[in-house]
Amino acid sequence: MSCRFLRLAVAAGLLASTALSAQQPASDPVEAVDPFIGTSGQGHTFPGAVAPFGMVQLSPDTHVGPARETYDWASGYRHEDPVILGFSHTHFSGAGHSDLGDFLVMPVSGDTVPVKAGDADTPGFRSHKADETATPGYYAVTLTDPGVRAEMTAGTRVGVHRYAFPAGKAAHLLIDLRSIIYDYPGKILWSSVRIRPDGTITGSREVRGWASPRRIFFAMRFSAPVTGHKLISTEENILYKGFKGPGRGPETLDSLSGRALIAQFDFGALGKPLEVKVALSGVDEDGAIANLDSGPGDFDAIRARTRAAWAEALGRVTIDAPKPMRTNVYTALYHSLMAPSVWSDADGRWRGPDDQVHAGGRTTRYSTFSLWDTFRAEHPLLTLIQPEERNADFVNSLVASQKASPFGILPVWEFAGKETWTMIGYHAVPVIADACLKGIRGIDCAGALKAMVASADYAPYGGLSDYMSLGYVPIDRKPEAASKTVEYAYDDWTIARLARKLGETAIAARFEKRAQNWRNSFDPKSGFLRARKSDGSFRTPFDPTAINYGSDYTEGNAWQYSWFMPHDQGGLFRLLGGDAQAVAKLDAMFDYDNSKIDYSHAEDIAGLIGQYIHGNEPSHHVAYLYNYAGQPWRTQERLKQIVESQYKPTPDGLSGNDDLGQMSAWLVFTALGFYPVAPGSNEYVIGRPFVARAEMTLPNGQHFIVIADGLSDANRYVGGVTLNGKPLERSAITDAEIRAGGELRFTMQATPNMSWATKPGARPFSTTAYRP
Amino acid sequence: MSCRFLRLAVAAGLLASTALSAQQPASDPVEAVDPFIGTSGQGHTFPGAVAPFGMVQLSPDTHVGPARETYDWASGYRHEDPVILGFSHTHFSGAGHSDLGDFLVMPVSGDTVPVKAGDADTPGFRSHKADETATPGYYAVTLTDPGVRAEMTAGTRVGVHRYAFPAGKAAHLLIDLRSIIYDYPGKILWSSVRIRPDGTITGSREVRGWASPRRIFFAMRFSAPVTGHKLISTEENILYKGFKGPGRGPETLDSLSGRALIAQFDFGALGKPLEVKVALSGVDEDGAIANLDSGPGDFDAIRARTRAAWAEALGRVTIDAPKPMRTNVYTALYHSLMAPSVWSDADGRWRGPDDQVHAGGRTTRYSTFSLWDTFRAEHPLLTLIQPEERNADFVNSLVASQKASPFGILPVWEFAGKETWTMIGYHAVPVIADACLKGIRGIDCAGALKAMVASADYAPYGGLSDYMSLGYVPIDRKPEAASKTVEYAYDDWTIARLARKLGETAIAARFEKRAQNWRNSFDPKSGFLRARKSDGSFRTPFDPTAINYGSDYTEGNAWQYSWFMPHDQGGLFRLLGGDAQAVAKLDAMFDYDNSKIDYSHAEDIAGLIGQYIHGNEPSHHVAYLYNYAGQPWRTQERLKQIVESQYKPTPDGLSGNDDLGQMSAWLVFTALGFYPVAPGSNEYVIGRPFVARAEMTLPNGQHFIVIADGLSDANRYVGGVTLNGKPLERSAITDAEIRAGGELRFTMQATPNMSWATKPGARPFSTTAYRP
Repeated sequence: MSCRFLRLAVAAGLLASTALSAQQPASDPVEAVDPFIGTSGQGHTFPGAVAPFGMVQLSPDTHVGPARETYDWASGYRHEDPVILGFSHTHFSGAGHSDLGDFLVMPVSGDTVPVKAGDADTPGFRSHKADETATPGYYAVTLTDPGVRAEMTAGTRVGVHRYAFPAGKAAHLLIDLRSIIYDYPGKILWSSVRIRPDGTITGSREVRGWASPRRIFFAMRFSAPVTGHKLISTEENILYKGFKGPGRGPETLDSLSGRALIAQFDFGALGKPLEVKVALSGVDEDGAIANLDSGPGDFDAIRARTRAAWAEALGRVTIDAPKPMRTNVYTALYHSLMAPSVWSDADGRWRGPDDQVHAGGRTTRYSTFSLWDTFRAEHPLLTLIQPEERNADFVNSLVASQKASPFGILPVWEFAGKETWTMIGYHAVPVIADACLKGIRGIDCAGALKAMVASADYAPYGGLSDYMSLGYVPIDRKPEAASKTVEYAYDDWTIARLARKLGETAIAARFEKRAQNWRNSFDPKSGFLRARKSDGSFRTPFDPTAINYGSDYTEGNAWQYSWFMPHDQGGLFRLLGGDAQAVAKLDAMFDYDNSKIDYSHAEDIAGLIGQYIHGNEPSHHVAYLYNYAGQPWRTQERLKQIVESQYKPTPDGLSGNDDLGQMSAWLVFTALGFYPVAPGSNEYVIGRPFVARAEMTLPNGQHFIVIADGLSDANRYVGGVTLNGKPLERSAITDAEIRAGGELRFTMQATPNMSWATKPGARPFSTTAYRP
Repeated sequence: MSCRFLRLAVAAGLLASTALSAQQPASDPVEAVDPFIGTSGQGHTFPGAVAPFGMVQLSPDTHVGPARETYDWASGYRHEDPVILGFSHTHFSGAGHSDLGDFLVMPVSGDTVPVKAGDADTPGFRSHKADETATPGYYAVTLTDPGVRAEMTAGTRVGVHRYAFPAGKAAHLLIDLRSIIYDYPGKILWSSVRIRPDGTITGSREVRGWASPRRIFFAMRFSAPVTGHKLISTEENILYKGFKGPGRGPETLDSLSGRALIAQFDFGALGKPLEVKVALSGVDEDGAIANLDSGPGDFDAIRARTRAAWAEALGRVTIDAPKPMRTNVYTALYHSLMAPSVWSDADGRWRGPDDQVHAGGRTTRYSTFSLWDTFRAEHPLLTLIQPEERNADFVNSLVASQKASPFGILPVWEFAGKETWTMIGYHAVPVIADACLKGIRGIDCAGALKAMVASADYAPYGGLSDYMSLGYVPIDRKPEAASKTVEYAYDDWTIARLARKLGETAIAARFEKRAQNWRNSFDPKSGFLRARKSDGSFRTPFDPTAINYGSDYTEGNAWQYSWFMPHDQGGLFRLLGGDAQAVAKLDAMFDYDNSKIDYSHAEDIAGLIGQYIHGNEPSHHVAYLYNYAGQPWRTQERLKQIVESQYKPTPDGLSGNDDLGQMSAWLVFTALGFYPVAPGSNEYVIGRPFVARAEMTLPNGQHFIVIADGLSDANRYVGGVTLNGKPLERSAITDAEIRAGGELRFTMQATPNMSWATKPGARPFSTTAYRP
């Protein structure tokens, strides 16, 4: 655990009790969620209001500022911060890099309306907070400085604010178009705000940020008439003086554009709370207005509708477990149902990676694809607990993005329709393959395969040219070459899998060969994955504990990355010398004495158990690998170790960035007793359940029930397993077995069962042979 | 004549013979035009290829750079410049402020391809020029440095380049997205360039310029295959390092966006000239591609089609006159047929002042409305020589812009669909009124009247709030208050005129009253229009010769502005004391000894005759005012003085900015013998013809013929006039008389006829009484 993490965890822990003050009866999944989990420590989640997969994430921002200083404020918010700057409409849930925080709204009461947020030394519109509470789709806080109770809710494309101003005091609202998460000079290329004749406020901004240029539009309506307004440009040192007249005129005009705008709206003293309804659009202001109309009703109506949507979505997994675990798992489920986010307008239009607007017809386009994270467990989870139509829309959004891409490739890390080129791999590929191989309807899988191949063959990307000719990415030409090689190889395997299914034998054969490329970067002598140079030699000196940006590995080192061949763990274990050697190496990783190691220089490295780093994704499948060596009880032990140390029902309860649901999806699967080690395999590796009973309502209407008989802290081992009453003698279950519905019943016991699922034929598929 | 003007005129004169080397037989109107007229001196015209009212103005740029240094390069080009930087696709014709110069293309030959234009000290891609020639829709020059003959032509939404490279040398093409007219740091907010799979190049840029933000897109195709390319960002000191991967990767990638881009395309040695076909769009890249397809054919096909379009447009006025006058008038006619420019895409979509994209249906939307200039003679001319449909589209574009305006008002000075807030008044109003009062079909005049009233009543604009309450704009609250007061009053009169026609009597009465507001700023004691303060007093000290920015007047002084009540010259003359006093004051203006006056500090002040300033618009109607005093022979004398001193068939032949056709339209009308002193009156004031015969083909198919019997340098006076054979005893003719078709025959003589059209009833309408 890094120094950075420890420091913040301590700070956040002090506030944990406040965050959890709104606990509700255990019977309601919605009330079981604590949106504050992960809002401190390294979780990077936000506590605000969002509908499942909603375009709007309406949440408080407590700090925005220079990008270099704000890694800890990637969601705009930290629970321990005493002040709130306002409430903005877009936030990432758990990202390790950031942007967003669009269209910050803040109420002000009284006669003085500041145009700056202020800080410790200078007064401003920011306020101290009290009585903070949140449930899915609802957030409330008291802003003690203006004396305003602020409530937030959100629908799919709308957010609604409700502000109760102190009686008799003049009510004002600020929209700060300057405020943005991860700011730096010049980031906001342009912005605008306009009061339309019918009173609707519209506006936009264009950002040179993580994805460039990112365009976002809004439409806003108030429940009370505006009695006055100011549209203010605070930009100084404008070089060009060529525009004159009202464009640079009095602040009472109805429209203003520029690079640093803030809008003030006055309402006088109000007799009842002010509601502020806001819609977003990535297309244009007309789109935002239509989106506003697409979510009818007032605050309470939208809150009720969104609560029902959350009840439905969360209710697809019913869980019996004691409160801490139940809170953890339902909050994890909640966090897994936020991204990808709706990106197309209600009329189907969406802005693509080419920055052009595309017609979308009746389907919904999604963006915010953190694919390096989410291909692992997040997307596989969604294939089980979300309707096929939505999973198809995810995949179709990826393919539509490829068609509109100026590079002709699938998204790498996309949000707001735009490519960020973040992290490595082409992990849209396993997401698509997994969905197609599971038979999700509504996808043109043959067309998608073409998009997958185009991405895998795009030579200019990340050393792919060398990878295709040499069989690995050479470290003297591309950084993080070892990680790239193994991740490409896995992605290639999923292409081969889908191609086989579709009868595209030539494609299948070519990518089956590429899938073995992981071997070209593996050093059997040291037993580690290592970066090779273009001359074929491994780079020296070699330190398997070194973690640095631009090193041989991506946010990790040889300890974590040497396990990343999810499609060929059997091949790996044979290279390592066999089961015993593999288990010994796994143990060496988990039990590594890291007391002398400091990874605080590296963001995203948190949640260490030895050299196992649960706070980041490369480790996520590793605890399940003991099964491949025929030692499932060792997996069971490691899972208990991880679950208990890495997930807590507190603001600092996530050991690492939630990464758009991946950290959470890991817990949901693990709590249910199985995990998709190799998406695309249609196989889940069995661990051990952490809940007494769980029932999934599958997209086809079937129910799949997990029961853990005798589960207790002492009964931590799997004694035996039955599937639909028949003994299950292997430590894996197939997607078809789950989708058929039924009951997976574990008998838990206090001692390891060292005979269950130990034989080669009883292990997960890839231990026996490479099976394309 | 200012020092600035003299200096440049001398420099330009040296090159005049080259410019006119391509003279053709007198029978062809197209060949009678010399596009180089106005490209030196103060004309600010460009010599490149454009179709009538075309979206694309494909023309060479000889200098771009800091805005403060480039007033003389408002069109991007000066004829005397020895070098060419490249050929860009958008240019204003004669503007006094500037922007544009979008998507500069330059050929380079050989092995070295520079990414900078270069200058006297450093080499670059710019080239010296030779053998420059131009006719409407065609421009050619030899770029002596790369040894390339460059030709340009243009259709309505396309431009085509043709480059003949030297044999055996590698051919390259640069697209410099950094190059822009009137540049300054930060002006280009964003830009992009992309190579599509079919080889089409698309791109965009977004500019914080004269109108902000201005967005323009392009699509480009080559006649030869590209053998290599580089997309290069030359931006330095980028603050944000958050985006990685191909977005900042090798220059061989297929797409790049940023703030300072240049694209290089390689073709190898070519066996025949390279054609580069480009379309623009204000909507998006798809729009640009569709526009590219909307103008089919190769260079020669488009050149021929555009030549035919020019022959048709210019041929609507056939002129018999000696060559210098014929060249001057046909070139003036040519310059009057460039703006407004087509702005909507071929599919009807257009980007409005709200920066949003609007559907346009089957009509064409125009932009580039330099209305302070063009309401005077340019638009009235177009109502006579362009189809009603196009004139209706002009008006409907103005009204559509009002509907999309965030301020709810008609354009003031609009281009690229955006408001620039340049100059004063709401002169879309007289343009619309004039068209409606003349009965141009295809306009919803009742709807347009609402837009006109909304603009005239928009209190925040230019002191209108005070104007409406005080009856004048007070100088202590708004600069240029005297000019604003009289221009608003005239605009108001045109609203009243249309309202009367439509039976909107309440509106008519209100604006008839406002139309008299000019009197509130007129000082009968001094005989000058003067700025008043809000306390009612005239501002002192008062110097009728002072010209300064932000003074009491707009680009002028009391001498010019004291005549601006075109709707009530009779009222003015009575205030001045009668006809004799008015004539004496007119003479005092024209004969003013300005030898001791220096206006070189003021842009746009050029072409002085005493205190008459023909190079700027406020004076344009003034020579015709002698008619209102019953002394038409004095108008005839002044017109000769003006025509001979202010228009020459040379690059420095325009005494002032052509101002999107207004300087030219003045000459066309004046050469024909009449002029619209008060658009909205449906009356043209008769001057004297400068051509032996002219025949207009009117929109209704009728022909209106002007004959000047006996015209010669000596026969400079009108002896008598007949209309359709009957004596015309008044110095005005109505629009209805012209549209009916017929023959206006002048008998020219060497001595003034001091009895023709002298009686009150024979003078233009407003001398007798104020007639709403």
